[in-house]
Amino acid sequence: MSAQEFMQRAMQLARKGHGTTWPNPMVGAVLVKNNTIIGEGYHLRSGENHAEINAIEDATESVEGSTLFVNLEPCCHLNKKTPPCAQRLIKEKIKEVFIANLDPNPEVSGNGVKLLEEAGIKVETGLLAQEGEKLNEVFFLAQREKRAFVHLKLATTLDGMIALPTGESQWITGDKARTHAHTLRAKSQGILVGAGTLRADDPALTIRLKDYEGEQPWRIVLTKSGNLPKDKKIFQDNWKEKTLIFSESPLASSPLPSHQVHQFSGLRDLLKKLFELKIISVLVEGGSQIATALFQEKLVDRVSLYQNPSFFGAGIPGLQDLGIQSLNERILLKNIESEWIGHDHYITGRV
Amino acid sequence: MSAQEFMQRAMQLARKGHGTTWPNPMVGAVLVKNNTIIGEGYHLRSGENHAEINAIEDATESVEGSTLFVNLEPCCHLNKKTPPCAQRLIKEKIKEVFIANLDPNPEVSGNGVKLLEEAGIKVETGLLAQEGEKLNEVFFLAQREKRAFVHLKLATTLDGMIALPTGESQWITGDKARTHAHTLRAKSQGILVGAGTLRADDPALTIRLKDYEGEQPWRIVLTKSGNLPKDKKIFQDNWKEKTLIFSESPLASSPLPSHQVHQFSGLRDLLKKLFELKIISVLVEGGSQIATALFQEKLVDRVSLYQNPSFFGAGIPGLQDLGIQSLNERILLKNIESEWIGHDHYITGRV
Repeated sequence: MSAQEFMQRAMQLARKGHGTTWPNPMVGAVLVKNNTIIGEGYHLRSGENHAEINAIEDATESVEGSTLFVNLEPCCHLNKKTPPCAQRLIKEKIKEVFIANLDPNPEVSGNGVKLLEEAGIKVETGLLAQEGEKLNEVFFLAQREKRAFVHLKLATTLDGMIALPTGESQWITGDKARTHAHTLRAKSQGILVGAGTLRADDPALTIRLKDYEGEQPWRIVLTKSGNLPKDKKIFQDNWKEKTLIFSESPLASSPLPSHQVHQFSGLRDLLKKLFELKIISVLVEGGSQIATALFQEKLVDRVSLYQNPSFFGAGIPGLQDLGIQSLNERILLKNIESEWIGHDHYITGRV
Repeated sequence: MSAQEFMQRAMQLARKGHGTTWPNPMVGAVLVKNNTIIGEGYHLRSGENHAEINAIEDATESVEGSTLFVNLEPCCHLNKKTPPCAQRLIKEKIKEVFIANLDPNPEVSGNGVKLLEEAGIKVETGLLAQEGEKLNEVFFLAQREKRAFVHLKLATTLDGMIALPTGESQWITGDKARTHAHTLRAKSQGILVGAGTLRADDPALTIRLKDYEGEQPWRIVLTKSGNLPKDKKIFQDNWKEKTLIFSESPLASSPLPSHQVHQFSGLRDLLKKLFELKIISVLVEGGSQIATALFQEKLVDRVSLYQNPSFFGAGIPGLQDLGIQSLNERILLKNIESEWIGHDHYITGRV
């Protein structure tokens, strides 16, 4: 196997942590000796072993003199729940380390590499760097911009409507598309809705997939006015401790304990505060006011659109005026993937 | 080969006439003797030989005692430019005839079969009838409803806009999608636009495909007021004889000779008059007023939508209020086909 193939295997392992490593990145590691994999590992959950450590502990023989393939720079800082990996690699006498991406945090980026090199370990960075960036796009964006990554979900007709003029919207898309949308939830750390959506739909915002046993996401509700209905599912169900209120005004009365209530001023500030709470990824599920405001402030990173192959003509559009003056300014999706899910067309891309 | 396979071959031949047989259907014919094809033919153009005749003339040996596979019932009426096929089949002593679909015209439907059977020819109808219906969906609908088939073309953003609030619309979709749209024109007998689109865009409405040598389509412009600009391409170019004006009011002054000007009253009447002019298929290319009115009157048979993967937020929507009151009433596309064409997504379906 080539170095590229070992790194691909590390990334494949990394993906096993998709949706559970928050706020940490997905990392996989492969230890190789005589062109043979002798140990593999990945990071599953914050507070648990990093990928490198799991690979060492998985090894079927002595790791001394082996080569490590890991998609993210091994950590060297001590202010974490787990011991730094770089020191462990040195102690285990690893001979060579291949890394896809450096740590995006400018304060530590390159320090792990430096520590390893000072100990005489040969280090090569940048192997499959693009694939690594893509794998951890959420983590990288959040670390660089110090805010939560925003993934906007929309379910519309072909003419962009999320509801009829009467408000009727359940359901524009079919069963299969709605189940697929739960897989988006399962890959997000938080789900964000406005108070209007809460009032209109009383959504549970939980992951209801067959055989799903993972954690439920944070449920984040925004209010401008500070007036919130109390009798909603997300304030009363089994996961109500995972509901957060973000308000731009002091709350009239709170449906939740005060430590679950936060003030914010503008959407950028909201995303910054979520990042500080270690919530680095949110799926925005409504309504059109929030979606529009996020686009206006250029805070949408990814869009997932489910389109029912139908037309309403008139209705409630998924987006409102974005102030776009020329074709060049339009919100254009890139790196698009698309497929039919049941009777609906799914398209996802980066902004 | 089986009977089905011979009929499939006949339909494959029929498709060679796609876009040129107007107002006739696409018909292909295969003559078989000892399980071997001895002659093949298809109908190319109105006024020229029917498929059966071409197959007989193509035969490499005597057709006496052979079996004919033809997707449409052989004609038996004399009020046409070509001699009736049923009589010819009898004269040639064809032994057996397989037919996919009967003639949709209730006055002649079954008469061709009757004539053949009376002459002792064994006839089987209904072989691959569904495929035959699909092949000639335009012809069948037109004959049954005595009106032109309506194929609506739209080019929009993902939020259903055909232009920015400023009116800017050229070009929302890319080169490849626009070239593809010319293939839709090449498969339509006429192209229909409103006077508003004529004023705003001055479109040529011609087929501009590399190596295209077929006929140009009829260009049909609608006006309610009877006021039309004279200085537009479709009134002045090389194909101006193929431009028709349909007006709901008397024309103030006409940019075209009077035999190219028609009165109509409502869209159903328009489509009926086109049918009487032997124009049985139109591609509707704008604007939103005509598209909306056609949907309101349930006169849209097929939709082709090119979607640029972008959002405007505000703009000029492709459709206006259709008066839809509940989700069940929405305009839902069926028999959908879709593909990416360059950077744009193409979706087509029947209403």
